[in-house]
Amino acid sequence: MKNTTLCYIERGGQYLMLHRVKKEHDLNHDKWVGVGGKFELNESPDECLRREVREETGLTLTDYRCRGVVTFVSDEWEGEYMYLYTATGFEGELRECDEGTLEWVPIEDVPSLPLWVGDKIFFRLLREDRPWFSLKLCYEGDSLVYAALNGEEISTDV
Amino acid sequence: MKNTTLCYIERGGQYLMLHRVKKEHDLNHDKWVGVGGKFELNESPDECLRREVREETGLTLTDYRCRGVVTFVSDEWEGEYMYLYTATGFEGELRECDEGTLEWVPIEDVPSLPLWVGDKIFFRLLREDRPWFSLKLCYEGDSLVYAALNGEEISTDV
Repeated sequence: MKNTTLCYIERGGQYLMLHRVKKEHDLNHDKWVGVGGKFELNESPDECLRREVREETGLTLTDYRCRGVVTFVSDEWEGEYMYLYTATGFEGELRECDEGTLEWVPIEDVPSLPLWVGDKIFFRLLREDRPWFSLKLCYEGDSLVYAALNGEEISTDV
Repeated sequence: MKNTTLCYIERGGQYLMLHRVKKEHDLNHDKWVGVGGKFELNESPDECLRREVREETGLTLTDYRCRGVVTFVSDEWEGEYMYLYTATGFEGELRECDEGTLEWVPIEDVPSLPLWVGDKIFFRLLREDRPWFSLKLCYEGDSLVYAALNGEEISTDV
């Protein structure tokens, strides 16, 4: 299991989305995700967040909040603890990303993009402004086979 | 770096504290800490929390809250991401713990126990009922040499 950050940067009702089309053997190939990545040794979650956002977008975050942790379990990919952040403050100019194409997408259109199914669950939790949550998502291939919110099983039908 | 949980169970103004006197090569030897332990494969933070509390105390948690994550960095011990919980609801009977002696201690007396110095910082944050936080604590031996709250350096003088 590895620790990662995943950040949705918000600006005027839009999220900055990364369309992962540039890497071959990529867990997220062709999917749309937020920006973020793996922890380096001794980094705190917020240190990882700010470094990854800077590396992938050129932006420096000035206001952000950890909304929860997603325990991602898969029969194909290494598991992850993903610290999920939203950010509303940033400085700098957006630049190209090595890992895909960056695009501002209206938040209401995000669920219609090719996403991991379970991402729609956490987008709903973000929209409902839930207190900090622990969301567990278990996949077989691309199918979501189990989901639990704060330790209680919830529907995988999203 | 490993992922762990650390839980302070509250009952009538007291925390359930574990005096770690039973294990020899123990990061926490002779110190007082909460209950908790290492994640098993694929466990979410709350699954780890409930299992560890059950194993160490015999209690089943019914109401608990993640208050933050502590990034513990040390020149002597493996680093940890400690998910810090408080719990106010539980069922069952307290039983003996393999790892030390369990004792209910009035919350105001806790800071006077032999603790890791940085624990006094997070006890303050708990007392102030801060929103979910990321606290980084770096130690050289038993000395706290760096502390940061939500990515901003704070005083190590506690």
